[in-house]
Amino acid sequence: MIPFLTVRHAGGSYPVWLDRGLLDQTGRIVEPRGSVFIITSPTLRQRFGERVAASFEKTAAIIELEEGEANKTLATAESLLTRLLGEGAHRDAMVIAVGGGMIGDTAGFAASILLRGVDLVQVPTTLLAQVDSSIGGKVGVNHAKGKNLIGGFHQPRAVITDPDALDSLPQREFLSGLFEALKGGVVGDSALFERIETDPAALLQRDAKLVDEVVRRKISVKAKVVSDDEREGGLRRILNYGHTIGHAIETAASYEGITHGEAVGWGMIGANAVARRRGILREEEAGRIERTIRTLQSGGLPPLDRSQVLAAARHDKKNRRETRVMVLPRAIGECEIVEDVTEAELAFGIDAALADQ
Amino acid sequence: MIPFLTVRHAGGSYPVWLDRGLLDQTGRIVEPRGSVFIITSPTLRQRFGERVAASFEKTAAIIELEEGEANKTLATAESLLTRLLGEGAHRDAMVIAVGGGMIGDTAGFAASILLRGVDLVQVPTTLLAQVDSSIGGKVGVNHAKGKNLIGGFHQPRAVITDPDALDSLPQREFLSGLFEALKGGVVGDSALFERIETDPAALLQRDAKLVDEVVRRKISVKAKVVSDDEREGGLRRILNYGHTIGHAIETAASYEGITHGEAVGWGMIGANAVARRRGILREEEAGRIERTIRTLQSGGLPPLDRSQVLAAARHDKKNRRETRVMVLPRAIGECEIVEDVTEAELAFGIDAALADQ
Repeated sequence: MIPFLTVRHAGGSYPVWLDRGLLDQTGRIVEPRGSVFIITSPTLRQRFGERVAASFEKTAAIIELEEGEANKTLATAESLLTRLLGEGAHRDAMVIAVGGGMIGDTAGFAASILLRGVDLVQVPTTLLAQVDSSIGGKVGVNHAKGKNLIGGFHQPRAVITDPDALDSLPQREFLSGLFEALKGGVVGDSALFERIETDPAALLQRDAKLVDEVVRRKISVKAKVVSDDEREGGLRRILNYGHTIGHAIETAASYEGITHGEAVGWGMIGANAVARRRGILREEEAGRIERTIRTLQSGGLPPLDRSQVLAAARHDKKNRRETRVMVLPRAIGECEIVEDVTEAELAFGIDAALADQ
Repeated sequence: MIPFLTVRHAGGSYPVWLDRGLLDQTGRIVEPRGSVFIITSPTLRQRFGERVAASFEKTAAIIELEEGEANKTLATAESLLTRLLGEGAHRDAMVIAVGGGMIGDTAGFAASILLRGVDLVQVPTTLLAQVDSSIGGKVGVNHAKGKNLIGGFHQPRAVITDPDALDSLPQREFLSGLFEALKGGVVGDSALFERIETDPAALLQRDAKLVDEVVRRKISVKAKVVSDDEREGGLRRILNYGHTIGHAIETAASYEGITHGEAVGWGMIGANAVARRRGILREEEAGRIERTIRTLQSGGLPPLDRSQVLAAARHDKKNRRETRVMVLPRAIGECEIVEDVTEAELAFGIDAALADQ
């Protein structure tokens, strides 16, 4: 067996394994130095956690975490640390996060600060986690002041991606991941974009071959970008395409009635409007992106106050104080980071994103 | 002005500045990209914090933290994060820790997990912090299960060391740092050991020239070791000389009635006994080390239960499960990491350390 690809980082590298059925081979793939702790939710424990545990020759402890953004807090991380220390975790412990982004981020964060960092393996079970959050080493929790304000970088020892896990994913969560995949296509892989553009119906019905290719291609885009820029100093920011306005929409909606992926979809439409106004994106390509997004959007936007979205965009943590940063597409498969976006452009983009409301 | 030395690490390097009076030049030395936040205690604020703040052209916010190991918790770090976010800290913020190890570790940990890590500057004001904890990037807090169980590595942008700050340090805290300095001499600088051995009385009276040289030499030892081994994979463990038994003594004493440095002093005597028994350390050198330690030890050990010390040593987090790790001196200025210390040797070392009780 050989991994699908290898992600490089300052301290070394890690393999991303990708295949159907891999979940049951986790114990054969990773090499724990000491005790193994599987962190998952009560629901996912039945579905995946027990199977991952059974794949280890030695006993692997399973620790349950309640899912949900509201539980993605420092308090949850602390209770996890207390459980891990209580069960005798040493420096050679291995934490295996089995679940979506919330589980991966929270368990990963706990692993990053336990005894100055213990081994972490990501076993993402949602599309969003498989194509996005499990790769790149970002870990963290929310704070009352905003999402992901507390955290760091803790590169996993391995990422084990099993597309079979997606079969039981609720449709809306699947869709959320699909928007991140679509974003990846516009950012750096026109063939990926075209796979989604050409037959969205087959994808939404989870055609295995098509899902596998989308997952594979999106992982490649993300792995390439984070290998070149581990700490988001420069190139990595390109992955924020659709996120400036997308995050602002999520914040203004108090994260209710809209998934992260959907928000990114609307944010991409907003970014494209700014790119069009600057004349850097051709109308035909903007149209193709927008049509694909609208085909995927299952519902409209929740009711939003335009001025609240604008205010939230102003406070985006990517902003370098006075200047506004946005990622704008030049073409399908090619984006650029623009640091001089004006207030008027931002408002114009938000209007385009909210046009349907 | 040029820094005293530069510490290398995987992500770059940072300067250590060392001179009397530097505290008032902090603002001229560091280059903040955004807002500056000085973290210090209410007492140290009057003595040093306000001076550091005044050295900046722009306004630097001062945030107070109650000192003491009991406050070195995740809860304190969280309240610090809330203060920082509440005062508008962005990714370009700079956290300046002004104080001893507790302040440096806690503020450093908060800086390491705020927005995935913001700039950190260490301004150590105790001897222990100047010669040890401010260098090397270790940050963290305690957990009910033990000290420093939560944390990570977050390399500072700069370390600013002003020996003038030591003038107001209580004698027992000064002594605590002196033991760490002595440890550094045995680990890697025989001339440093001899400075302390030759005229401990002058040192204890804080003869400026002697203090400066001891600080300078101990920083050099530590900087060299951590530059070669940032993450404590190998060589860095050499700095744990005296710590296996020292930590066990601290734990058994519930950290009461004994300073960290004193405990390390007794731990060095214990390690030397094991080295003597193995025949790797000559009697004459063991005698010189022990005499110097005993000259410095201001009081005896608090009453301790030998079996508790032994139990605590067994659970040392440096232990790699079955095997016991200890650092043993071969000579003054030369130590080695030994991974096969037996239970009997450990007990023998503890008996030697506790002989005076």
